[in-house]
Amino acid sequence: MAVVVQKYGGTSVGDINRIKNVANRVKATRNAGNDVLVVVSARSGVTNRLVSEAKTLHENPDEREMDMLLTVGEQETIALTAIALHALDVPAVSRTGGQAGIITDHEHTRARILKIDGHDLRDQLAKGKVVIVAGFQGVNKEGQTTTLGRGGSDLSAIALAVAIKADLCQIFTDVEGVYTADPRVVPNARKMDVITYDEMLELASSGSKVMQPRAVEFAYKYGINFEIRSSFNNNTGTMVKGEMESMEDVVVRGVAVDKNQAKIIVSGLPDVPGSTAKVFNALADANVNVDMIVQNIARAGKANLTFTVSLDDTSRAKKAVSGILDSISRSSVKIIGNIAKLSVVGVGMRSHSGIAATLFSALAKSNINIQLISTSEIKISVAIDLDKADEACRVVHQAFDLDKS
Amino acid sequence: MAVVVQKYGGTSVGDINRIKNVANRVKATRNAGNDVLVVVSARSGVTNRLVSEAKTLHENPDEREMDMLLTVGEQETIALTAIALHALDVPAVSRTGGQAGIITDHEHTRARILKIDGHDLRDQLAKGKVVIVAGFQGVNKEGQTTTLGRGGSDLSAIALAVAIKADLCQIFTDVEGVYTADPRVVPNARKMDVITYDEMLELASSGSKVMQPRAVEFAYKYGINFEIRSSFNNNTGTMVKGEMESMEDVVVRGVAVDKNQAKIIVSGLPDVPGSTAKVFNALADANVNVDMIVQNIARAGKANLTFTVSLDDTSRAKKAVSGILDSISRSSVKIIGNIAKLSVVGVGMRSHSGIAATLFSALAKSNINIQLISTSEIKISVAIDLDKADEACRVVHQAFDLDKS
Repeated sequence: MAVVVQKYGGTSVGDINRIKNVANRVKATRNAGNDVLVVVSARSGVTNRLVSEAKTLHENPDEREMDMLLTVGEQETIALTAIALHALDVPAVSRTGGQAGIITDHEHTRARILKIDGHDLRDQLAKGKVVIVAGFQGVNKEGQTTTLGRGGSDLSAIALAVAIKADLCQIFTDVEGVYTADPRVVPNARKMDVITYDEMLELASSGSKVMQPRAVEFAYKYGINFEIRSSFNNNTGTMVKGEMESMEDVVVRGVAVDKNQAKIIVSGLPDVPGSTAKVFNALADANVNVDMIVQNIARAGKANLTFTVSLDDTSRAKKAVSGILDSISRSSVKIIGNIAKLSVVGVGMRSHSGIAATLFSALAKSNINIQLISTSEIKISVAIDLDKADEACRVVHQAFDLDKS
Repeated sequence: MAVVVQKYGGTSVGDINRIKNVANRVKATRNAGNDVLVVVSARSGVTNRLVSEAKTLHENPDEREMDMLLTVGEQETIALTAIALHALDVPAVSRTGGQAGIITDHEHTRARILKIDGHDLRDQLAKGKVVIVAGFQGVNKEGQTTTLGRGGSDLSAIALAVAIKADLCQIFTDVEGVYTADPRVVPNARKMDVITYDEMLELASSGSKVMQPRAVEFAYKYGINFEIRSSFNNNTGTMVKGEMESMEDVVVRGVAVDKNQAKIIVSGLPDVPGSTAKVFNALADANVNVDMIVQNIARAGKANLTFTVSLDDTSRAKKAVSGILDSISRSSVKIIGNIAKLSVVGVGMRSHSGIAATLFSALAKSNINIQLISTSEIKISVAIDLDKADEACRVVHQAFDLDKS
């Protein structure tokens, strides 16, 4: 008998029939001889409705009250899921995040999990019950309701799997798993059976939106293997786990494209120590994450600095940089949208060479201009024109033979 | 400076604009120099929607899970109300029933309040904050969410007023106060300025649905005066309080009609000790509340027993009585719906005579037949035909000059 954590996202519990489907799947897992702990999100649509009501009342609603408001979403789902299981004669009991013993810090809307007291959860499982826990939420030490921020339900599932020492953690979602590329763009993209935490993290930060990096990092830290799979069929998904030697045989695992990028060019910076630091300090103060960075030496002791930021951060980034440019004479800042970042990812890169050459050749053959390059141990990213992004994804996918297993 | 508890029901917070109105009223009360604790219900419609979803999944959903499900209704309202107050620059903080320290027993869906730890609430008020508490809900000693049953938000308000030693408790609703009769039936019915707990209790149990008896009883027990008034205007409402001598000058205070009644006739009962007790024991075992009772001696040592029950209890009552009739030979049970109960109520009845005569004469003059009679110290009730109920209400209201103050 195994202890299994199953997490179902907002679309998987989106309406009453889908909640019934979830109940059937949980029952089947339990009938196969497992103890099952279920983590559910708010039904899709509920959170958006509540956020929009709050914004009608106040353009910048209080974060504590937003946590109070939004946690009702999962609370509805846990109760309805428990009732759906009862209808199938499966003993089940629901728990809010706080009741499940998920203790967080005080940072409303983006709290961090401090600890989980899994005592009651293990007791309920030992009594033969399915336990349904509200994802995304916890309480701080004063008993105030907190939320874990975007993707928080995945984090809840992984953290609960750690707390109850689960044998398996399954993340049910509306996709079949992790693909070598976005199947809507690359028709012959292939679902991967297995992927390392590192690769998953690089893919997530490169625009593959299957899962938030925080949950992957947490799983990595505690060595929890988990599976990403679809709640709409019985196909096996993608297993995310620690590295094994054989994984290095495949050099490139996947191609990810992030279309949510803008390029910022700061020109005419004095080429003296400290001027670049000033720019990035200003961006850090404004809470802007900078991704790729290139600095060129220009004429007459002036440098050009180019970097990419998330499209959402563009205006904040421009404001921050413009603010300090006043103190650096004759510099200027220019924003270029319509940028996409394409990344190839694979742990095998560490021990193989020639990846960059293959990537650049494939893009050159298709006349796709590379504007910026950045690399990590297991990733190469390039910034390209947004309108070439899909084509680039297809030719790179082909160049690395990713359609073949 | 006074401490004021204000309770707003489901229609008073029914949409975003009404929540804004509530916020404005709370702000005005606070600006007048008061500390304000607000109790709110679920927005009208929310509870019904959730109940219907649960019933789609299970015809008889688990009570613990129903409490988990339905408490989201008030949780939404407290957060939105706090946000609406922030938009008016009023410091405000929300509290679920559990966070407000409302500790109940373990009876899900109908829990009783065991105690309220008002410590945090008083702290927040002392900091100058408006505190918004979710009505209808509490937690038991194990931290499980419970609800207080129908009308529970009124009970929450009264109990919180006791806990924080409030000077005034205002129950805002969609009617202007307590009337001498239902104004939809009796156009010249008059709003009463003041009414005693006893009268309010008798009116409530006689079909005047302004407030549930439990909340009134709680206020009575702890001597909390409260006002029932409209959230849609600034008119003063009806003050509910302990008895004062001058109140006896008015003999009849109001007329209430309960149209939710059925009459049950058990005929041919052996007129021997114990046969009536058998009937009522069976009804008690089936949890049926019996209201008016009349027993006639019939021919040949057989008695007829007639009583009224709530329409909702009819089939349970019939089943219970039929079950024991098998053991009492040649008895039969008959149910007659279409019954209404009309009651006249007033503490002055204790010291005045002739009330029954006035009541019976008024009905007789209009050819309205009285089927059953029951009396308490401050009430006389009669069962009449349902289709005569409205007319009866009008003639009785007139006979006691209730349109004149």
